[in-house]
Amino acid sequence: MFDEKLAKKAVENLNNMRDKKPLVHNITNYVVMNSTANALLACGASPVMAHAQGEVQEMVSLAGALVLNIGTLTPYWIDSMLMAGKRANEMNVPIILDPVGSGATTLRTQAAKRLIDNLSIQVVRGNASEVLSLAHEGSRTKGVDAIHSVDEAADAAIVLARELDTTLAITGEVDLITDGVRVYMVYNGHELMGYVTGTGCTATALIGAFLAVDQDFLEAASTALAYFGLAGEKGAETAKAPGSFQVALLDALFSIDGKALEKGAKIRT
Amino acid sequence: MFDEKLAKKAVENLNNMRDKKPLVHNITNYVVMNSTANALLACGASPVMAHAQGEVQEMVSLAGALVLNIGTLTPYWIDSMLMAGKRANEMNVPIILDPVGSGATTLRTQAAKRLIDNLSIQVVRGNASEVLSLAHEGSRTKGVDAIHSVDEAADAAIVLARELDTTLAITGEVDLITDGVRVYMVYNGHELMGYVTGTGCTATALIGAFLAVDQDFLEAASTALAYFGLAGEKGAETAKAPGSFQVALLDALFSIDGKALEKGAKIRT
Amino acid sequence: MFDEKLAKKAVENLNNMRDKKPLVHNITNYVVMNSTANALLACGASPVMAHAQGEVQEMVSLAGALVLNIGTLTPYWIDSMLMAGKRANEMNVPIILDPVGSGATTLRTQAAKRLIDNLSIQVVRGNASEVLSLAHEGSRTKGVDAIHSVDEAADAAIVLARELDTTLAITGEVDLITDGVRVYMVYNGHELMGYVTGTGCTATALIGAFLAVDQDFLEAASTALAYFGLAGEKGAETAKAPGSFQVALLDALFSIDGKALEKGAKIRT
Repeated sequence: MFDEKLAKKAVENLNNMRDKKPLVHNITNYVVMNSTANALLACGASPVMAHAQGEVQEMVSLAGALVLNIGTLTPYWIDSMLMAGKRANEMNVPIILDPVGSGATTLRTQAAKRLIDNLSIQVVRGNASEVLSLAHEGSRTKGVDAIHSVDEAADAAIVLARELDTTLAITGEVDLITDGVRVYMVYNGHELMGYVTGTGCTATALIGAFLAVDQDFLEAASTALAYFGLAGEKGAETAKAPGSFQVALLDALFSIDGKALEKGAKIRT
Repeated sequence: MFDEKLAKKAVENLNNMRDKKPLVHNITNYVVMNSTANALLACGASPVMAHAQGEVQEMVSLAGALVLNIGTLTPYWIDSMLMAGKRANEMNVPIILDPVGSGATTLRTQAAKRLIDNLSIQVVRGNASEVLSLAHEGSRTKGVDAIHSVDEAADAAIVLARELDTTLAITGEVDLITDGVRVYMVYNGHELMGYVTGTGCTATALIGAFLAVDQDFLEAASTALAYFGLAGEKGAETAKAPGSFQVALLDALFSIDGKALEKGAKIRT
Repeated sequence: MFDEKLAKKAVENLNNMRDKKPLVHNITNYVVMNSTANALLACGASPVMAHAQGEVQEMVSLAGALVLNIGTLTPYWIDSMLMAGKRANEMNVPIILDPVGSGATTLRTQAAKRLIDNLSIQVVRGNASEVLSLAHEGSRTKGVDAIHSVDEAADAAIVLARELDTTLAITGEVDLITDGVRVYMVYNGHELMGYVTGTGCTATALIGAFLAVDQDFLEAASTALAYFGLAGEKGAETAKAPGSFQVALLDALFSIDGKALEKGAKIRT
């Protein structure tokens, strides 16, 4: 029912990432810095947070991936993202963008678009309304919550991925990932993930860690989302409320091995 | 012994809040952004953190309540709070202020007073020394710790609520809430809450979520504090130390239903 | 095998700290503000985070120790640290510096050196590569991860402590603490601590809390590290993965009493 080859690819990416322990440079929002760093550590990567314009170019040159996240943005931070991103492009360090709240305010929509227009970004991950807001300004989200279903978004996503020349990872009940040609769907995940702040941002950061070891951006994103969603499923086996679930999710990111991931990954083409 | 009508009101507010899932716009301190967002999600609200002057007016116009918290303040953040607050006032979005550390440093005391002087603030929540510092500058607290008992504060609070033309929620072993006319006391809570950072800030944010569904500010604040204190009691049933208590507290915010709240709310007039 | 007198000193420091509940003023990075505050609360101290130049001098004058941590630094924050540090020096408030990522970027290395050159700093805590970077710029770390062993670092540390005129606490599998004359080694700790973000920063903050009650900086640092490492060991007795370990670590900081610390402290001269 699910793609076995992609399940094996997920295992390969996870193992390679744990072997390489890539430095993932995050310029991200205040709310999730701690939880993102903990998720990256738990999965086996090496996180660093740095936003000062005096060091982002030097830091990203040490990194295996750059994560740009516009939550709690101010103009200084967007400029830092541009500086880091340009150096990343020069050094072929893959970039993933999380357009948190794009569509909700003009500042966020414009910031996300500015980053996309000025950088070569390998993956954009967001919920449907965030990602769709990158195309047209008609959509206004209620904060960072989704207002469109993934089903509504699928056709638009393929067109949009081509227009923006990037891979889009639209997460929701089912995750849709497309580079404008191929479309993958990831069925892993659990509804409790919506009750923990920053799970979307964590998904973005984990894709970053996988991008450091897989140059097929679509497969890096899809396999990372399968791994993260599976961690949510494992967490929900023991935890029934958001506090304990958050703990169990981190534990699962650490504990899931290749065998569990190969068995549990639910990716379809 | 406790007021049954107010216990029913607490249930009504909790259920309405969970149905409406109000967007709660927080301009708050770095320490608690993550824990505040998680508490709001666990209780059923929809949190957003945004402080950029380029978006706070737009963001607050989408919100059901605005939470202003002056911990880790700098002048830019206070200006953002004023901008957001003025728009909130124009749009009748209720505002709650948490004067973290007011009384401890001149900057904090003056910032809190500036917000109160320039905005119509519906509720101010703090510990006794923070709230009392809003009246006279003689009190200098030891950081954000309380130095006055609620008992000492009761009479002063009624006078102060009238002077400041707001509802005061003074939290401590017993919470005292007054709009200058009515006085409610909330007896819920547990001492372990003092060993987790940001529980005061969480209380403030939860009052914000209740303000989004109850225009009686005194009752919104009192019922939110009863709900939060009850979550502390439930958490302490299983957890005996701060790490596991923090987890259990979040779980309880999520798990407490109307029946448990009606039975457990300890509000007195 | 381990020093019994120093184990007793650890108990004395822990008890004194819990009695005094010193205000620990932190100017620290965004990633760890919440976890640092929670660790200080769990151990019995009173944390405050404040970085505004309009209040750091006033705040530090109320404090028992000042913690300076350069992760997520920008120039404004370094200037705030200098302002707070100068006042701390004037008032004999002990200062501990955590040079997070020094050696990884020029900005961080220079910031750490500027603080050391301009302030009297009682303790510097970092991993081997961070601490060694304070002497010569040849070392470039991979983010904030250690690249040198404590063994390699021991001789260099004694020389460096004399040159910098401070006490160095180099943490790793074994912690090495030296004031340039005496050398202590702490064998407490657990490898899971490396999978939780900010455990190094927490160690620094806990040393800060012990500095508030022990003027022998070497012993304050060594006993705090033994206490923290023991908490890691206790946490790992029940937790086998980073999420639950983080919770258990906080619980252990709260639960460890004098008897447990005297029995468990592993300090050698």
